[in-house]
Amino acid sequence: MHMRTTQTEQAAREQALVDAVVRSFDDAPDPRLRQIMQTLVKHLHAVVRETRLTEAEWNTAIAFLTAAGHITDDRRQEFILLSDVLGISMQVIGVNNEAYANATEATVFGPFFVQDAPEIANGGDMAFGAPGEPCWVTGTVRDTDGNPVPDARIEVWEADEDGLYDVQYTDGRVAARAHLFTDEDGCYRFWGLTPTPYPIPHDGPVGGMLAAVGRSPMRASHLHFMVTAARLRRLVTHIFVRGDQIGWQDTVFGVKESLIKDFIRHRADAPTPDGRAVDGTWTEVHFDIVLAPADRIGVGN
Amino acid sequence: MHMRTTQTEQAAREQALVDAVVRSFDDAPDPRLRQIMQTLVKHLHAVVRETRLTEAEWNTAIAFLTAAGHITDDRRQEFILLSDVLGISMQVIGVNNEAYANATEATVFGPFFVQDAPEIANGGDMAFGAPGEPCWVTGTVRDTDGNPVPDARIEVWEADEDGLYDVQYTDGRVAARAHLFTDEDGCYRFWGLTPTPYPIPHDGPVGGMLAAVGRSPMRASHLHFMVTAARLRRLVTHIFVRGDQIGWQDTVFGVKESLIKDFIRHRADAPTPDGRAVDGTWTEVHFDIVLAPADRIGVGN
Repeated sequence: MHMRTTQTEQAAREQALVDAVVRSFDDAPDPRLRQIMQTLVKHLHAVVRETRLTEAEWNTAIAFLTAAGHITDDRRQEFILLSDVLGISMQVIGVNNEAYANATEATVFGPFFVQDAPEIANGGDMAFGAPGEPCWVTGTVRDTDGNPVPDARIEVWEADEDGLYDVQYTDGRVAARAHLFTDEDGCYRFWGLTPTPYPIPHDGPVGGMLAAVGRSPMRASHLHFMVTAARLRRLVTHIFVRGDQIGWQDTVFGVKESLIKDFIRHRADAPTPDGRAVDGTWTEVHFDIVLAPADRIGVGN
Repeated sequence: MHMRTTQTEQAAREQALVDAVVRSFDDAPDPRLRQIMQTLVKHLHAVVRETRLTEAEWNTAIAFLTAAGHITDDRRQEFILLSDVLGISMQVIGVNNEAYANATEATVFGPFFVQDAPEIANGGDMAFGAPGEPCWVTGTVRDTDGNPVPDARIEVWEADEDGLYDVQYTDGRVAARAHLFTDEDGCYRFWGLTPTPYPIPHDGPVGGMLAAVGRSPMRASHLHFMVTAARLRRLVTHIFVRGDQIGWQDTVFGVKESLIKDFIRHRADAPTPDGRAVDGTWTEVHFDIVLAPADRIGVGN
């Protein structure tokens, strides 16, 4: 048989289909929905065309989405996990928290935030008995002109040393989460736990995909922050532990250089900053936060 | 506040994330899986970046996929419907059935094919009592050099005049589907039904999306063909009715100009080609089929 495929004809047929699908959204009453669907269509078709996706591979993709749908319920959200491990969640955070002067960078929100966590005073302990190495956390909140921000609300939450958040236990505990406010100088300080690494749920299709491509399901050790203050852009971020065993291999791509902090470890008998008696080693970390003005894209709430 | 966003810094952050996610697949043991995932990642991130997708819109997308997963079961496949109405299914067909000389174009397979449909002789009736206007279908099967193909297997199936396939009834009927073989001259002929338009299932999230963008869920009137012959590429296609009320608005983008045929309507008392007595009007259509060689991409079983 001679090779008589006309590549030009083939490319024209493929592009004509893309154009037809794009046009089918031309009359959408909502221009924003039209824009999103047309952009999505162009890129999904490009994936098929560039990879020359086979029908068997397409069937695999349909089966993957079906399995993700079936494992998803009120306590498990496989589509968010998928978005996370493909870096999509992080990219959405990025485009909604655009670079602005020296404003602190945002990172993924994650599924473990809880409204109305208990308030602690400056210098208080947000661990509430959660197991782990104590960590003394201090810092300031400022605007991008360098002015201290008094009375900024800081929500903090993290996993315990077993890699679990309080809400992952079935005993109803509230631990390793709290909120506090900056003082009149824009300063804050509290006791928390030295963060440790943990895996995302990986017994479903997303975990299967990670295994198939040789990727780890582990998240880099981190402590969550959400900071809100009047007329400033809400900041959702983490701090990460320099030298962490997972580090840049964080499976949801949350790590940014500017968010990696030195957690300095002290001997078991070293005196603590506030005289608290600690049974064993403890660490300390400093995190100065800079909030962008609220008129930037990605303003919170 | 002054505008101090550094667009360069923002673009660099976004691209760095894409690069990191792409690199995370570098060590995938299966090079094909690596290629597919990396291509998918690039394009999904491009959708987020080009649309500046908001967190609320991302939440809507997650909720859409979740709802699609939850309506999907053994009898309903919302992810295939989604693929269909975005033209993805059709694009997959396209890249796996590349243009080759004058070979007949392929189109979507659809969910209603059934293995082991009854055999009919040339000139037989594949309707098996399904309601609808009789249609006399004739044609030839040839290779791209013009040689007739004897003994090619032709599977044909279609909806009845109520827009339903036999498998959509609960009474176990087998109707409006059959297979037959070309004769020694590569010719075939059978009685079927004049195709009529029908909607895809549209009571779920995909139907909701179509309604939101002002698109119809209707498929253009069509008759399915699957043609197989030794050493030739399997062809899955439809023929469509010229002048059909849906036509190019076919919600799964299956229509191609080369597949639109003239269905010629005859008076109720016009003599039929084979002398069959028909109660009412009837139509006839001619469809000559050309099969590519089997060594082309997309060779079927």
